[in-house]
Amino acid sequence: MLNIETIYEASKVLSEVARKTDLILSKNLSEDNEIYLKSENLQLTGSFKLRGAYYKISKLSKEQKDKGIIACSAGNHAQGVALSAQKNNIKASIFIPATAPISKVEATRKYGADIKLIDGVYDDAYKAACEFQKETGGTFIHPFDDEEVIAGQGTIGLELIQQLPDVNSVIVPIGGGGLISGIAFTIKHLKPSCKVYGVQAQGAGSMYQSFLNKKVLELPVVHTFADGTAVKRPGDLTFEFCQKYVDDIVTVTDDEIASAILSLMERQKLVAEGAGALSVAAAMFEKVPVKNKKTACIVSGGNIDVNILSRVINRGLLKAGRLCHLTIELLDKPGQLKDVSSIIAEYGANVIRVRHNQGGENTDINDCFLKISMETKNAAHFEQIKQALINKGYKIASSVQ
Amino acid sequence: MLNIETIYEASKVLSEVARKTDLILSKNLSEDNEIYLKSENLQLTGSFKLRGAYYKISKLSKEQKDKGIIACSAGNHAQGVALSAQKNNIKASIFIPATAPISKVEATRKYGADIKLIDGVYDDAYKAACEFQKETGGTFIHPFDDEEVIAGQGTIGLELIQQLPDVNSVIVPIGGGGLISGIAFTIKHLKPSCKVYGVQAQGAGSMYQSFLNKKVLELPVVHTFADGTAVKRPGDLTFEFCQKYVDDIVTVTDDEIASAILSLMERQKLVAEGAGALSVAAAMFEKVPVKNKKTACIVSGGNIDVNILSRVINRGLLKAGRLCHLTIELLDKPGQLKDVSSIIAEYGANVIRVRHNQGGENTDINDCFLKISMETKNAAHFEQIKQALINKGYKIASSVQ
Repeated sequence: MLNIETIYEASKVLSEVARKTDLILSKNLSEDNEIYLKSENLQLTGSFKLRGAYYKISKLSKEQKDKGIIACSAGNHAQGVALSAQKNNIKASIFIPATAPISKVEATRKYGADIKLIDGVYDDAYKAACEFQKETGGTFIHPFDDEEVIAGQGTIGLELIQQLPDVNSVIVPIGGGGLISGIAFTIKHLKPSCKVYGVQAQGAGSMYQSFLNKKVLELPVVHTFADGTAVKRPGDLTFEFCQKYVDDIVTVTDDEIASAILSLMERQKLVAEGAGALSVAAAMFEKVPVKNKKTACIVSGGNIDVNILSRVINRGLLKAGRLCHLTIELLDKPGQLKDVSSIIAEYGANVIRVRHNQGGENTDINDCFLKISMETKNAAHFEQIKQALINKGYKIASSVQ
Repeated sequence: MLNIETIYEASKVLSEVARKTDLILSKNLSEDNEIYLKSENLQLTGSFKLRGAYYKISKLSKEQKDKGIIACSAGNHAQGVALSAQKNNIKASIFIPATAPISKVEATRKYGADIKLIDGVYDDAYKAACEFQKETGGTFIHPFDDEEVIAGQGTIGLELIQQLPDVNSVIVPIGGGGLISGIAFTIKHLKPSCKVYGVQAQGAGSMYQSFLNKKVLELPVVHTFADGTAVKRPGDLTFEFCQKYVDDIVTVTDDEIASAILSLMERQKLVAEGAGALSVAAAMFEKVPVKNKKTACIVSGGNIDVNILSRVINRGLLKAGRLCHLTIELLDKPGQLKDVSSIIAEYGANVIRVRHNQGGENTDINDCFLKISMETKNAAHFEQIKQALINKGYKIASSVQ
């Protein structure tokens, strides 16, 4: 069984390669409390996964290293294993489902790994990886259910206690449970009074359900845009660690995760992926007690596709009433576009797109539509503008904010 | 005249409030060199401006503090002054042109400053601030042309030398010149062999032009989306510092700045504003010698409007051939949408938007258009898809990538 000396050893091994990531006090998230961000999104490879993979590989024998290592992942684990193999000068074969985002495949390839793109989903890639393991005798590096991988992730707990000795609680994202197992183990050994909370996305709460029911459960489907945590079945080992060392596990919605991502970008200048923002979402929406406490949120990774980021920004702005779409029914006569524009300008909103469409199924033949997208201060500001348009006789066909 | 002891003193004063920002080795930008990022975007208020403002205010007499301080700014200086005043428990009146972005005004207000929104542009707000200064006798805090403000910014140079003693060169964004004056002064006193380069946006090269012509010049217009550096006339004092301590000044284009912002987000998980990314753009596009050198890029700030960020992402993706728009002319008969979709799917591109429009000025009456937006790997991938469509008899009306 794991002991605390192993965590110290892992920390020493990792000092060769991993960054001791900054613990950043978030003035913007802190009101009647202190919220700190452990910035593992700024870790090499963009996530904490490097720690576990590198420590695991450091423990392999010369013979094992010579036979190469194997992993199956479409995400952060792939990059962590690939860089660790490169640093150790050993061969890594990484099995990735062909549906994985292009950017993640390319990032993994860049670290020199041998990429095996497998048609189908994760399970298909996993099957292929297992067959390959039997053929080659290489070592399969599990993404979470492995004591040495857990020990590697535990080094984050060690750094945390050094960086903030009077921390009251830690919030940790959960996918398979490797990260929280390592951190909870370490924290409870060094400072038992510090609470350790786990967070999962509502649509992928396999550890949450298992923890609640006190037995490992497998979910039939998982659905969340925090794709790094979309795990159907937690590990047996990580489940044991959670039962023993974790105080509570909570869930957050995808909208709450999106708000947390937007907030981290706008206020903290940090890019977090969905999984990485889980902890911040739990603090922001007070899913765990944070009042009058010093809380550390593990921002576990930042590998989010920029296309998705762009969508998260838009969704966040819409929800905050800062981006609004308005469809106005006009009579098809001159001067109305100018008139509407003047009203919007008068109220200080910033028009970012205009579309002018004639016709539509449910309108008179000579009607036309003006679709306007604009930036506003908040929902109340948007309401003022709508009211001003209505007062001038315009008909609002639809509005989205 | 400023002396190096003052920088040490400023550093001590600032230790009460400012973060000693992390110096991050960028593995992704480094190939045959080492590029480090001094992350002042992670500074409190989201930029380095806090340093100069806070040190300046710390040097005011009790009488001066009692009369309050005044600043004129639409951006980072406003936030730096506001937080500094709050920490010193003195009154700050900040004059902001009414055209300033909503988000920046709100951020400044949050630090407890008295906001004076003035109709018009910067010059109008500046005039109002000067009048207010005469009335109240408060102290006007200049954003850059002030020795104590410069000393505050110089503390970044001090930290840099401590964090990376064998640094070969430093790249610093220039607006009015306060940041580079302080850093260049400090570096050249502590390590004269280290090169100091300045960067400006091509459309706002007032210090660049002045440096080249060896006299202070005022530009008639400035235009760049690095709005934090859009200064028409550099300071007299900062110009002197640049002449004395800066090795060279270069410029970058808005497109190069956008690429740098995208790269910082995707690869480093850091949000930088246009001004903040100038230094990284200069390194990425080798505007200064970086080969085989240890170069520190000052990422001076991260206060970028998320709407603009969203546009930067799209522009960057388009330029990299990773987001493409295709308009295909179809005969208006069944089955063609399905046919086109199949071809795109076969090549592994990800369709993100489809619009199907009938008619158009230059087409036959029974033609219609299919507009498809999709994610692709790169420009070559997009070409393959276009060719496949043409081979099947489709006519490409237009394509954007």
